[in-house]
Amino acid sequence: MFFSNIIWIVMDYRYSNMLSEMKQSEIRELLKYASSDDVISFGGGMPNPQAFAIDDLKEIIDYLIENHGKDVFQYGSTAGIVTLRKEISKMLSETEKIKVSENNIIVTSGSQQGLYASAKVLCDPFDPVITEMPTYIGALSAYNANKVDIHGVEMDDDGIMTEKVEDEIRSLKNSGKPPKFIYVIPTFQNPSGRTMSLERRKHLLEISEENDIPIIEDNPYGELRYSGSRIPSIKSLDKNDSVVYMGTFSKIMTPGLRIGFIAGPQEFVDRINLLKQALDLATNTLSTYIAAEYLSRGIMKKQIPKSIDLYRRKRDIMLRALADHFPDDSEWTKPDGGMFLWARVNSRIDTTLMAKEAISRGVMYVSGSAFYPHMERRDEMRLNFTFPTDEKIEEGIKRLASLIREKTAHL
Amino acid sequence: MFFSNIIWIVMDYRYSNMLSEMKQSEIRELLKYASSDDVISFGGGMPNPQAFAIDDLKEIIDYLIENHGKDVFQYGSTAGIVTLRKEISKMLSETEKIKVSENNIIVTSGSQQGLYASAKVLCDPFDPVITEMPTYIGALSAYNANKVDIHGVEMDDDGIMTEKVEDEIRSLKNSGKPPKFIYVIPTFQNPSGRTMSLERRKHLLEISEENDIPIIEDNPYGELRYSGSRIPSIKSLDKNDSVVYMGTFSKIMTPGLRIGFIAGPQEFVDRINLLKQALDLATNTLSTYIAAEYLSRGIMKKQIPKSIDLYRRKRDIMLRALADHFPDDSEWTKPDGGMFLWARVNSRIDTTLMAKEAISRGVMYVSGSAFYPHMERRDEMRLNFTFPTDEKIEEGIKRLASLIREKTAHL
Repeated sequence: MFFSNIIWIVMDYRYSNMLSEMKQSEIRELLKYASSDDVISFGGGMPNPQAFAIDDLKEIIDYLIENHGKDVFQYGSTAGIVTLRKEISKMLSETEKIKVSENNIIVTSGSQQGLYASAKVLCDPFDPVITEMPTYIGALSAYNANKVDIHGVEMDDDGIMTEKVEDEIRSLKNSGKPPKFIYVIPTFQNPSGRTMSLERRKHLLEISEENDIPIIEDNPYGELRYSGSRIPSIKSLDKNDSVVYMGTFSKIMTPGLRIGFIAGPQEFVDRINLLKQALDLATNTLSTYIAAEYLSRGIMKKQIPKSIDLYRRKRDIMLRALADHFPDDSEWTKPDGGMFLWARVNSRIDTTLMAKEAISRGVMYVSGSAFYPHMERRDEMRLNFTFPTDEKIEEGIKRLASLIREKTAHL
Repeated sequence: MFFSNIIWIVMDYRYSNMLSEMKQSEIRELLKYASSDDVISFGGGMPNPQAFAIDDLKEIIDYLIENHGKDVFQYGSTAGIVTLRKEISKMLSETEKIKVSENNIIVTSGSQQGLYASAKVLCDPFDPVITEMPTYIGALSAYNANKVDIHGVEMDDDGIMTEKVEDEIRSLKNSGKPPKFIYVIPTFQNPSGRTMSLERRKHLLEISEENDIPIIEDNPYGELRYSGSRIPSIKSLDKNDSVVYMGTFSKIMTPGLRIGFIAGPQEFVDRINLLKQALDLATNTLSTYIAAEYLSRGIMKKQIPKSIDLYRRKRDIMLRALADHFPDDSEWTKPDGGMFLWARVNSRIDTTLMAKEAISRGVMYVSGSAFYPHMERRDEMRLNFTFPTDEKIEEGIKRLASLIREKTAHL
């Protein structure tokens, strides 16, 4: 009490318990290094700026400001402008054979908002959900922020093992808490690069229907196929509104404009709309106009083949470098598309511990454990091949291989 | 079972209880009518597009795309680019005498995201918070989405009645659940247009410090002052990190670009950052670059006086029209700035019920009950004067006055 007049009292914030399990994403932490010129980054999930149609975007924006200046800078509707939703409906019909009205589509601020909002409208805290294991780190982050109980199910080269999904549902049902949804990225999965087989897709849909548990199908990479032939989206097989479909323009237009979308049953979309009013009121108006114009002018159709050519080459360079340099006791996926491949090294190497050392050697990856709900494995890594230059892919894999070889020698 | 082969079984989504109390915002519903040419809208909270610096924005965007095309379309950092945060820090120092480092600022996707995120990092479900009554409908929506227990405290012409805040805190403490924060819009409040006196600001800060309950100060309209002299923001009086300050570019640049920000203690901002990674990863990159350039080129300083001249005239037209046409038993606030005034009519008129009738007469407002946590009053309305043309303000108030007079005659 004696010193009370001079003690500097700082406000004591009592934070919520709801977010207690959230932790700094390893990717976001590591990305700080990604901008350094000395570090070759396989870490982020960034498209290559060479794939941005910058001139077309400039033309579109100039046109929009000159002709719709008062609209593109004003508040927009929560669902997103109807012209964009109609264009998305058309695109889904043409590319994925998904038939969905513009009224069943809501534009989101990136697909990250879709991940967060879909969990929030379906789940109360501690409700279980099923995901692939490993799965997208952004989904884990969205689900953790909603205090959702994440149950990962193993994958093999044909995607999530649907029989194990059945087991997990049975076990959760027996415990009195059936899962609220099943979240999958069936095509060129992040992080693994794997694609779920048609058989498995059909089986997952059956499981969903039999158990009355909706599927959330996330398809950010589907258009970026470099080899093999297209496999129908689960949503295109769905006749009973069992599937909520999520897409994004981040990998096929640009990520900075933050345009994602959800297509689903009316009540689901209405609830997302209501929640979105609380989350951010509406997606960036200018961006929604740009995206609509980008589709209606056919820039999307013109630009995607260019991205495919660019990324196919980069994927091939990385696969070749891995074959040339990585030790024999390691293995990796050979993705037919997307942005990532997934490598597993000697099981006694902890890639999470090795990550900082790798950065000091001038190469960066995201350790596999970050993609597991509870860090179930620690001997894997995600490697992005879309962002680095061709030369850096070769050089980065060499650096990584030499570090792994040294580690293995000291085991 | 007999018909099981032909019954069309549609997936039964089991939605969360967390959002059960959210309801469609009356404003968003009514805004559908706002676009009709026959209806004069005092309903939205939209700035006038005449106040948009469209030519400057076009020049900035052209410059950015030509010189930073690879950056403005790429993923951005969650906190927002540092150049923008530095510009905001400078702006706050110049306009509000708030000293805050760029590291204590996080850019949000509109101030709506700030409202949602600040509640989420501080509150678990059913935690109590204190707000002005009436208060901003978007705050109610953000708090309801977090299942927060909202306790409104009455206002008079000097703003929230701070003695009643003390009473409410005492009563909540006695019940074992002290409020997690006190949310206020001290300057040109939405919806009331009222400004909290300096005395009250100081008193509220004392109450906050004595009770260890932070203040969230939301200041979207502070720069739009048409009369009277500036009153210091609460944050500028704060020496103990008791105040989290929220701002937005929606009313002083453009709302479509969705740029808001939070300035607060380091741990608070860090937690918002972590949550934002789950909410939408990052704010629209192009927008953050535009906003930074808009400030650094001095467009903000050049443009705000134009908005002030435009809106002062419109406020005066509305005040004059109210004095000329509204019945004697009604009253309204005379705001020194911002976008709204608040009218109270004969207490036997239910403005919520009257809203649809008003639309059929070609005029729209938002009924006062929407701004109350539990619809405590039903004889008030919020009137926006920034968006309609001068002529429509006069005509709309006439239409509204004639409807109210008819209603009163039939009481």
